[in-house]
Amino acid sequence: MGALEELRGRLSELVDLATVAMLLSWDQLVMMPAEGTEARGLQLATMARLSHERATGDEIGAWLDELDDAALDELDRDIVRLARRDWERARRIPRELAADLARASVEGQESWQLARAEDDFGAFVPALERNVELARARGQCLAEADESAYDALLGDYDYGLRTAALRRLFGSLATALPPLVAVARARSPRQTLPVPIAAQQVAVAGTLRRLGVNDSSWRVDVSAHPFTAWIGPRDTRVTTRYGDDEVESLLSSLHEYGHALYERQIDRALARTNLGQGTSMSVHESQSKLWENHVARNRAFADVLAAELGAGGFTVAPAELHATLIGVEPSAIRVSADPLTYPLHIILRFELELALIEGELAVRDLPAAWREAMRRLLDVEVPSDALGCLQDVHWGAGSFGYFPSYALGCLIAAQLWEAMQAELGPREEDLRVGEVKPIQRWLGERVHRHGRRLDTLPLVEHATGRALEIEPFLRYVGPLAE
Amino acid sequence: MGALEELRGRLSELVDLATVAMLLSWDQLVMMPAEGTEARGLQLATMARLSHERATGDEIGAWLDELDDAALDELDRDIVRLARRDWERARRIPRELAADLARASVEGQESWQLARAEDDFGAFVPALERNVELARARGQCLAEADESAYDALLGDYDYGLRTAALRRLFGSLATALPPLVAVARARSPRQTLPVPIAAQQVAVAGTLRRLGVNDSSWRVDVSAHPFTAWIGPRDTRVTTRYGDDEVESLLSSLHEYGHALYERQIDRALARTNLGQGTSMSVHESQSKLWENHVARNRAFADVLAAELGAGGFTVAPAELHATLIGVEPSAIRVSADPLTYPLHIILRFELELALIEGELAVRDLPAAWREAMRRLLDVEVPSDALGCLQDVHWGAGSFGYFPSYALGCLIAAQLWEAMQAELGPREEDLRVGEVKPIQRWLGERVHRHGRRLDTLPLVEHATGRALEIEPFLRYVGPLAE
Repeated sequence: MGALEELRGRLSELVDLATVAMLLSWDQLVMMPAEGTEARGLQLATMARLSHERATGDEIGAWLDELDDAALDELDRDIVRLARRDWERARRIPRELAADLARASVEGQESWQLARAEDDFGAFVPALERNVELARARGQCLAEADESAYDALLGDYDYGLRTAALRRLFGSLATALPPLVAVARARSPRQTLPVPIAAQQVAVAGTLRRLGVNDSSWRVDVSAHPFTAWIGPRDTRVTTRYGDDEVESLLSSLHEYGHALYERQIDRALARTNLGQGTSMSVHESQSKLWENHVARNRAFADVLAAELGAGGFTVAPAELHATLIGVEPSAIRVSADPLTYPLHIILRFELELALIEGELAVRDLPAAWREAMRRLLDVEVPSDALGCLQDVHWGAGSFGYFPSYALGCLIAAQLWEAMQAELGPREEDLRVGEVKPIQRWLGERVHRHGRRLDTLPLVEHATGRALEIEPFLRYVGPLAE
Repeated sequence: MGALEELRGRLSELVDLATVAMLLSWDQLVMMPAEGTEARGLQLATMARLSHERATGDEIGAWLDELDDAALDELDRDIVRLARRDWERARRIPRELAADLARASVEGQESWQLARAEDDFGAFVPALERNVELARARGQCLAEADESAYDALLGDYDYGLRTAALRRLFGSLATALPPLVAVARARSPRQTLPVPIAAQQVAVAGTLRRLGVNDSSWRVDVSAHPFTAWIGPRDTRVTTRYGDDEVESLLSSLHEYGHALYERQIDRALARTNLGQGTSMSVHESQSKLWENHVARNRAFADVLAAELGAGGFTVAPAELHATLIGVEPSAIRVSADPLTYPLHIILRFELELALIEGELAVRDLPAAWREAMRRLLDVEVPSDALGCLQDVHWGAGSFGYFPSYALGCLIAAQLWEAMQAELGPREEDLRVGEVKPIQRWLGERVHRHGRRLDTLPLVEHATGRALEIEPFLRYVGPLAE
């Protein structure tokens, strides 16, 4: 067997192990009886250990070396290029550091959970200090010649993205958004719309069906936190959740649908290779945000959503539903933030985690820095650490460099949406009747089919003809403030 | 790390891989959207390949050699003993033969499916010939000094069981049962009891709850064919199915419960070792048959089942329900056979598969041999090959030596039931009110907790004080014929 065949065989195996692990997680969150937790943790740990072993073996290096001089077609060149990148990154982390990171992540999450429940940041300090220190060490191991530790951590989620680029983009946003927030704050508060859960269920099912979700290759279930699992190219599983007096289920279903569609429209030629998945965290988030912000929150699509709620026995005027979906209201909490204030929550986290990794902010000073930034960016007083710097699990789990992708997703979604409309014409007429095929096709062609062949920034340029910029997003959120 | 620690680590890993594969299969049969089939096949194949690789590595042999002279406690001695047996058996199959077997199994199942649909045995002949030839080769590879190929194949399912012992047991049964069948045939035909599905669902849930099935560590779902999956020591999943006018769902739920309880009551000290599972196919089947034949078909327990059906809105007298559950009616079909005729279907298959493997029966002569045996053993005319020698998937899938465990399960169940009552006293009074804790405890102590530490025949002797025999089963089925 040639080196290419060996390599591709191994990559297929790694894809299988990854999708099996995804099924284990899906099952844990959706189906597993509660007492299965212990065995599931052991199963996931074994799968992760085997995956790591098979992804970092010396034999891969030998195949790659042999392929350096081989005449390959374009696809195989990309496969080999990404295989080398992934293999080298994975091997840069010493075994002992990897074990320390895994342990600190588990302990950090436990410590975080207790500290949040007790609103006691002090109890979380040692675990967070440990996670910061280990993440910094990890970044230093991963960093290439001209990279900082934080640059390297960003590469886990968005390869090729640099801290300097984020400072520039987020700096401009931090200047442009607060005045819009001030305008919005002057208006009446965000409306709520109590919708019976049964009506939400009918509307979610009906709306997803219009977008092409069927029983033969999808599942739609309920879980505590909505998420999407791609178990196979034709086995996609989204979850949502239903609250008593909100329409979050509609937004979150469209959000998860965006993640799902991305993975489903990747070129079949990339299946079971290292290229056959979404290219990065921020592009993935752009796909969910596109369907959440630009479709579900579109005034024209409110006609469809209101009709689907009507089918569930709940009558609401499309305009009223739309007003609820786009309401703006600054608050201390990221996960329930509206589209306008959301990026400010992320910018705050970016500033602080960068300062932590670079050693410019001590963990013990985090609560004060958080309160200062919330005032500066959102003009919001933090009621407690539990609702302040203890609200997210990420740092407790050792994830640094992840937060930025949430805001980048918003920016990329807006830029894609403008580029698409420039090409296809305004989408309103189609959306009013639930016609989304041209959107699906455009995204498939410009974004989805490439899989990992293009990294975040080149993909944005390829899809929109322009470098990543904030203006489309500002044009999207401007009207929400008024 | 010492050899024992290395070995135990590897065995734990193999347990994780096996339970993950079980989850993949459970999900496929219960949850997966239809179009996920292709990806699931690839995932299962990857898991099987990895498991095989990790179970047969040279390093295991080195650890075992090192442990030959080590001073080990009783548990570790058993772990090492079974590890050597499993490792040696797995390594006796050459890689090429293993690949041929896997391919022939897939192709054989496809061929069987088409042949059965068309009632065209001729179309199945080449695939079946190939499976017979490969199974014989496999048996020859596995056979130890004094074993025949078929002996060795039996060892896949019931280690230590020999063809000669089966000839003796099944020969006596083939003499003793037909006269009972003739008596039963002279009576009125088997009654059916049309029960609405909704009432069956309530009764199944209620009955299982009485046996200790709860939401926190069990799942009960529906699938085309009932089965049980043990994903973890506290994550047990049984399935059942509901037919319009039958009470099969009650019997099959108790049947699956028997499998489930076995795995749940294995000594916790054996968890994540090679000993922590049911010891053999026939002992597993004995546990399901015990709950199906001796509990669900017990006249006293009919009071409970009738009450549970009543809770579902369906009124039936316990005596009438019981008559339905124990009805005897000879037919051509194994899977719907009653407790009395069931072993005769198995004896037929044992005779024929033994003759196929030993080269005394040519595949093309199978239909005639099948018809002859059905007349001889059951006095039943086979209406077609589709309802005759094409009715089961096993041989098409390459499984030879599996069928006997179904009949052995019936024998062992009856023998355990008698031994238990000899010790605990008659169970009727308890069963009338649904009290099964003494049964659970006795089985746990005598059968379940041992896991694989005792093989089939020694376990039967340990649990009942007698070698495996047919008399308890004859005493159980005698009254059913009257």
